Amino acid sequence: MKLVVIGGDAAGMSAASQARKRKPAEELPIVVFERGHFTSYSACGIPYWIGGSVGERDALVAREPAAFRKVGIDVRIRHEVVAIDLDGRTVTARDLDGGGTVREPFDQLVYAAGAIPTTPDWARIDGDGVFGVQTLDDGAAIHAWLDTDPAPKRAVVIGGGYIGIEMAEAMIRRGLEVTLLEKQPQPMSTVDPDMGEKVAEAARDMGITVRTETAVDGLEVADGRVRAVATGDGTLPADVVVLGLGVRPNTRLAADAGIPLGITGGLRTDLRMRVPDSDGVWAAGDCVETVHLVSGQPVHVALGTHANKQGRVAGINLGGGYATFPGVVGTAVTKLCDLEVARTGLTEREAEAAGYAFVTASVESTSRAGYYPGAAPMTVKLIAEKRTGLLLGGQIVGREEAAKRIDSLAIALWNRMTVEEMTGLDLSYAPPFSPVWDPVLIAARKATDAVHAAME
Amino acid sequence: MKLVVIGGDAAGMSAASQARKRKPAEELPIVVFERGHFTSYSACGIPYWIGGSVGERDALVAREPAAFRKVGIDVRIRHEVVAIDLDGRTVTARDLDGGGTVREPFDQLVYAAGAIPTTPDWARIDGDGVFGVQTLDDGAAIHAWLDTDPAPKRAVVIGGGYIGIEMAEAMIRRGLEVTLLEKQPQPMSTVDPDMGEKVAEAARDMGITVRTETAVDGLEVADGRVRAVATGDGTLPADVVVLGLGVRPNTRLAADAGIPLGITGGLRTDLRMRVPDSDGVWAAGDCVETVHLVSGQPVHVALGTHANKQGRVAGINLGGGYATFPGVVGTAVTKLCDLEVARTGLTEREAEAAGYAFVTASVESTSRAGYYPGAAPMTVKLIAEKRTGLLLGGQIVGREEAAKRIDSLAIALWNRMTVEEMTGLDLSYAPPFSPVWDPVLIAARKATDAVHAAME
Repeated sequence: MKLVVIGGDAAGMSAASQARKRKPAEELPIVVFERGHFTSYSACGIPYWIGGSVGERDALVAREPAAFRKVGIDVRIRHEVVAIDLDGRTVTARDLDGGGTVREPFDQLVYAAGAIPTTPDWARIDGDGVFGVQTLDDGAAIHAWLDTDPAPKRAVVIGGGYIGIEMAEAMIRRGLEVTLLEKQPQPMSTVDPDMGEKVAEAARDMGITVRTETAVDGLEVADGRVRAVATGDGTLPADVVVLGLGVRPNTRLAADAGIPLGITGGLRTDLRMRVPDSDGVWAAGDCVETVHLVSGQPVHVALGTHANKQGRVAGINLGGGYATFPGVVGTAVTKLCDLEVARTGLTEREAEAAGYAFVTASVESTSRAGYYPGAAPMTVKLIAEKRTGLLLGGQIVGREEAAKRIDSLAIALWNRMTVEEMTGLDLSYAPPFSPVWDPVLIAARKATDAVHAAME
Repeated sequence: MKLVVIGGDAAGMSAASQARKRKPAEELPIVVFERGHFTSYSACGIPYWIGGSVGERDALVAREPAAFRKVGIDVRIRHEVVAIDLDGRTVTARDLDGGGTVREPFDQLVYAAGAIPTTPDWARIDGDGVFGVQTLDDGAAIHAWLDTDPAPKRAVVIGGGYIGIEMAEAMIRRGLEVTLLEKQPQPMSTVDPDMGEKVAEAARDMGITVRTETAVDGLEVADGRVRAVATGDGTLPADVVVLGLGVRPNTRLAADAGIPLGITGGLRTDLRMRVPDSDGVWAAGDCVETVHLVSGQPVHVALGTHANKQGRVAGINLGGGYATFPGVVGTAVTKLCDLEVARTGLTEREAEAAGYAFVTASVESTSRAGYYPGAAPMTVKLIAEKRTGLLLGGQIVGREEAAKRIDSLAIALWNRMTVEEMTGLDLSYAPPFSPVWDPVLIAARKATDAVHAAME
């Protein structure tokens, strides 16, 4: 019995580690192929390393290949898998440094190839200075580019989602002039426009030029490097261009091997992370789709925390244990300097797409008792189903101790609570931590009123 | 139809306000009797006002009597109710300033008389300088005492619970030498001893002398003021003594009127905050008992957030609406300088008393990704039922962004989640907010392992 893992980041290495915990190397040899130079690193930390908040690249690496080898996990970095033969039970990998290919037999296969940044045709230029932010190798390339002499002065970040926002902050911290381009009327289309507007304001306040409703026509290149971004709204000089246009599941190898993909383009799995109808094949991480527990629909959510959980679940099951990954409720959080932004469940647009009729309630409150030093303003928005009052989603924007409150809403969603039941929740209160009515409770009260009003 | 409310703080004024919202003054005249000088103030904020974090006493007052009068709520401060005649449907109140008594008829009565600090016989001295911390009048008395000339130099705080801890911090901030006396081996007996020990360490680190397993024999008085606290372990000079020995429900008037009390000494109510078998009598706040949703037992928990919720529920129902207060899960939070302490559900001792067999799991983690600046250590402890793995309780001690995570556990308890199901929770993750495995998830994993191990 041999296990081969494709992809040596969060999902793949979690699977390998959990399987190893339960089965010794004699019983289950494990080989991991990783295209890049690193294993088990925090991709989410890359913007903070580039921006200088995190000093060392290696701080982002949770565990080096050597540490895995020590427990009998045969990690082969710089090995890119180029083919999977499901019938012959082998994978073929190219040695990117040494040259040549190896063919590795397997009994069990974990597909954890991650995601790849969306790269429009216009972004594929014959020149340097254009970057996606997906792998630590990507991060290292940007870091090196910013350190070139003369140093890049003007950055254009294309796409105002999580990566775009975080990279815009990073570039500002590095002293660059930054323009953030967003096709929609507001950045952060993962929250409702009224919340996204607050992000745009905060970005402008910190000196970022925010251009919304702006589509990119192409990039201008000269002397082998990017020089400008052409938009419908004029040409923006750029020494560095960062793409934050989202990612899609990296499934080409799986598709080539005949594994059918889900409706989102990600690999389908069962609750134990087994790929259906593909005996001995497992999948986990940014390459899979999962179920959104509020909409009931399959979704592709590339996030380190899911990748870790899914890899762990696959590894436990591979090792003879039992664990499941039941799905997600769509929780995410980020910050733009001191502005914290968090969401869970469905936005208004998503709730509509799922077929829900709903009401919304937004409240302005504070992180601490209003009279307590450091009390910072916070907006909590809830979306609840009409009639039933089921919580469907929540969004929080605030300045301090705000975003982590989204977890309360995520757990309420997980348990299918109504906003009315939420008004009774026994949330912690003391003046340094919350007003006597926690902002989440105030929002639940207002949402309850909205549900009642919609019945009349 | 006339409503009389006894007690003008959180519960009483919430009830009055909610009733008023639903019924105009013509339909429902409301009279509130309040013994003290203030209405709707934050008793929980008193230690922070005394310690100087909150500059003005009036910052603690959410709403002045005049504001209530403006909406037709007849608030009479400095009026102490001395008798309730349930058959005659009147209350009698003494005018503490003007003298004399008034008799007020009622159809509906809200009993919201709060709690009174436990005061042992030895603490009833014939002299000044000994204080409970219950009402804003108490707070004002302490504040004035600390401002006397010569200023008190040595404080002894008796009792290491929430009020004791918070008042010890306040006294340190005011520059006093502070000794904290606790009968138990650790302060904060509302958390388990291993967590309480961390509080003791933090107290010592900030210069507080912590004496545990120390019982008070009496107080020494001279020239009309307290001079020392006599303990089994020697005599401690004291210019000010603060009692933090807990509170009990203030139910004398109700008991005198023939309203039967619950097993905890608090008034019993139904879910709508009606006193059973007492037509037209409602109760809310620190004077009532409620059900602990994890133990199933009645409990007395004096906490502003419950008082507000219960008062609101009573007022909505009084006003012709419908609302319930389903009980508590025992959530509480405090801090000692930058050490945050939070709990919910049952401690080990409480779980045992309730009849549960259980396992525990403690984990050390950090508030942010380990590599992210400001990541602070945090301990999360979970208690889970044997066999079922039902979450029974949780405790968190940490330095930053720690305590509010208790809300996640409180909502998990509320929904009767098992620790195994909790391992799948979709909690928010980004490096500035959490390690990729949130401390709560790590604890849930470890508790799941403990549940499994206990089955073998």
